[in-house]
Amino acid sequence: MTLKLDNPAQVARLIDHTLLKPEASREQIVALCDEARRFRFASVCVNPAYVALCADRLRDAEDIAVCTVVGFPLGATLPEVKAFEAERAIAAGAREVDMVMNVGALKSGDLDLLRRDIRAVAEAAHAHGAICKVILETGLLTDPEKESACGVAREAGADFVKTSTGFGPGGATVADIALMRRVVGPEMGVKASGGVRTLADVVTLVEAGATRIGASAGVRIVEEALGQAGPGAASGESY
Amino acid sequence: MTLKLDNPAQVARLIDHTLLKPEASREQIVALCDEARRFRFASVCVNPAYVALCADRLRDAEDIAVCTVVGFPLGATLPEVKAFEAERAIAAGAREVDMVMNVGALKSGDLDLLRRDIRAVAEAAHAHGAICKVILETGLLTDPEKESACGVAREAGADFVKTSTGFGPGGATVADIALMRRVVGPEMGVKASGGVRTLADVVTLVEAGATRIGASAGVRIVEEALGQAGPGAASGESY
Repeated sequence: MTLKLDNPAQVARLIDHTLLKPEASREQIVALCDEARRFRFASVCVNPAYVALCADRLRDAEDIAVCTVVGFPLGATLPEVKAFEAERAIAAGAREVDMVMNVGALKSGDLDLLRRDIRAVAEAAHAHGAICKVILETGLLTDPEKESACGVAREAGADFVKTSTGFGPGGATVADIALMRRVVGPEMGVKASGGVRTLADVVTLVEAGATRIGASAGVRIVEEALGQAGPGAASGESY
Repeated sequence: MTLKLDNPAQVARLIDHTLLKPEASREQIVALCDEARRFRFASVCVNPAYVALCADRLRDAEDIAVCTVVGFPLGATLPEVKAFEAERAIAAGAREVDMVMNVGALKSGDLDLLRRDIRAVAEAAHAHGAICKVILETGLLTDPEKESACGVAREAGADFVKTSTGFGPGGATVADIALMRRVVGPEMGVKASGGVRTLADVVTLVEAGATRIGASAGVRIVEEALGQAGPGAASGESY
């Protein structure tokens, strides 16, 4: 995909506008929703406890999804718990579910458990009209492990693979996005997350194969794009 | 409580022997269990995905509990999800459940939600013969917030309050343990966790009011106690 730097709206549509800090208050989550509405981000990405608040706040903004996280950020709980968490979050209004895979299962060579874990959440999401992204936490993995994880996520019916939680070591890298895109093929989504802070980051990650960006710096990134688009667009009038 | 430095067994009985890294393999968890058996720690503390493995490995060691974590480490999921996670972990063999409270609810002044959240897990635990510890994540809180959280945890029927996840900012401090002990009174448990690495740490935290210690350095701490107890005890024969 070629990202037009002079199209801030196109940049915004790539971004899951994210606030996952445990200490986030209702007020901060409301502000996140209002920013998403102003800039037309793809989604707001929040913890399950705030999904209902966001769904209510964005009730009349159908182009902005509520995205949430499951088994987050360690991925080390039981498959049925992840599936239940996904179901409850979807019932509260989530349309996208970013689950953390069971990293320990992969490290132990237990790909059956890894597959069951992902499939449980993907099936729960699909049964209720939501999509499922699988967070690999690439900063903990070797390249062969990243490849295995991508293959298993694809087999298990996930819609996206995603690099990082933002709570672990490292974040999205161009090399990892390229690896993930290569393994999952052209059809699945690839989400780059963790440490994405500038428009230049977004451009290089999209060029490498990312189709979605998770970032807490979405406003700044789109404002950068508005600046590059010239003084007319920079007023933000198009939003 | 006065902790006898020359009683390594007494030191070991205070410690939840902890491995919560998401990348921990089955092999590392088995080693954790075997260390717990050798040193007679109070428990092994592991993620839910490894509870069944630990319960099996420690089947004949009734004095060593399997402890797990719920809503960990952000505490930002739904009360019913935390309760379900606790139930499933207890069904798999957990006897102690360390839940992370909803920090965002406290920050938003929503003490009703905070109370419901804790009560849901405490009731699930008690209904199935387990105990419930409430992790405050003290590093995110002001002193008045810590006091509120302790009061709510006590009202909601928790068995312990606990300082930290080890994944957030800061860890157990003597001042926080003293504050928590003062608010919850003499009957409840107080668990110090996060950054507890030496026998001296354990001694000062216990003197301040802690009745349980969460640590990944349990083996080193008990070996320190064995060293202080003299060459006879240092052989580890008493274990």
